[in-house]
Amino acid sequence: MSRVTCDLTVSLDGFVAGPHQSLQMPLGERGETLHRWQFEEREANAAQVEGILAAGAFIMGRNMFAGPGPGPWDAEWRGWWDEEPPYRAPVYVLTHHVREPLEMQGGTTFHFINDGIEAALALARNAAGAKDVAIAGGASTARQFLSAGLIDELRLHIAPVILGGGERLLDGVGNLELEPTSVSGTGLVTHVTYSVGGVKE
Amino acid sequence: MSRVTCDLTVSLDGFVAGPHQSLQMPLGERGETLHRWQFEEREANAAQVEGILAAGAFIMGRNMFAGPGPGPWDAEWRGWWDEEPPYRAPVYVLTHHVREPLEMQGGTTFHFINDGIEAALALARNAAGAKDVAIAGGASTARQFLSAGLIDELRLHIAPVILGGGERLLDGVGNLELEPTSVSGTGLVTHVTYSVGGVKE
Repeated sequence: MSRVTCDLTVSLDGFVAGPHQSLQMPLGERGETLHRWQFEEREANAAQVEGILAAGAFIMGRNMFAGPGPGPWDAEWRGWWDEEPPYRAPVYVLTHHVREPLEMQGGTTFHFINDGIEAALALARNAAGAKDVAIAGGASTARQFLSAGLIDELRLHIAPVILGGGERLLDGVGNLELEPTSVSGTGLVTHVTYSVGGVKE
Repeated sequence: MSRVTCDLTVSLDGFVAGPHQSLQMPLGERGETLHRWQFEEREANAAQVEGILAAGAFIMGRNMFAGPGPGPWDAEWRGWWDEEPPYRAPVYVLTHHVREPLEMQGGTTFHFINDGIEAALALARNAAGAKDVAIAGGASTARQFLSAGLIDELRLHIAPVILGGGERLLDGVGNLELEPTSVSGTGLVTHVTYSVGGVKE
């Protein structure tokens, strides 16, 4: 069976976004500095960037697709990406508001799921075939899957940045059974892959 | 001039000790699981263990020498260690209560300093000669030196453990300028060395 993976970039003090997130500043104050490794050192980190997009299906939270704020969809909104999102596979968006699937160019189709993370995972597994299913974020979606013991591999990309506030990745996820299986890095990031055995008592 | 280094073991969620620290449980709930790498994998981590004790002088907070609780010294107290502590060098203990130096076996002498971290550092630098000065902990002492821009190299030993609460290492240290310079690990720990450039605006 395919694995469930999750890639997340965090600050050294454990935040996935800085303080004061807003539509204008979706990653909060200095949050964009977390991701310098993906842009300024793309070549040195090519394997990790490729790994993030290698899955056969993706699951993401509503905010990752639509930005902050609850409520019904603006039918004009087609995601944060352009007409050819980088996923090139089915993407299951967790939401309270169903909507018709949205087929983009390049193989990405957004499906809107309102019956919970396990239902979304079943659909994603089915779509992924032998490939992995990736939990694409955001942090609260990753926390839900971690807490439920549904993630097999957590790949943290630790940026050498201290944000001092914001949204923490691991608050409240419980006593996860973790084993580091690989580690590497550059001047702008440390990659650590954890095998996740579930939640211990 | 010798460098100022600081080795600390932290949980993946950033704690140096778990919740509910006490005299009976100085590392808090499950805090001792942070340090499994030093005991169960001592051979695989020999270089890191050796690095922790390689300095020519050490600085530590009062609690690291004496356990929790303020107030004058119990003159009988000779530290958490046996008569031959592992430091084998001068150790400067930050305190509000001066006391005569305490000479132990094997080269360790505890000196009690009550005029601040910079004064302690000047004495430690002088004693260390060409060797490094190590900030031996605990976390609040490390935070003081980090915030003051006095640490050149921070060596984090990240245990694959989620403590969910306790004492955080990096809360309030400010926007440190960090660059990872080396990374390695085993199944019980990920070692990341950071060069610290000071505190940015």
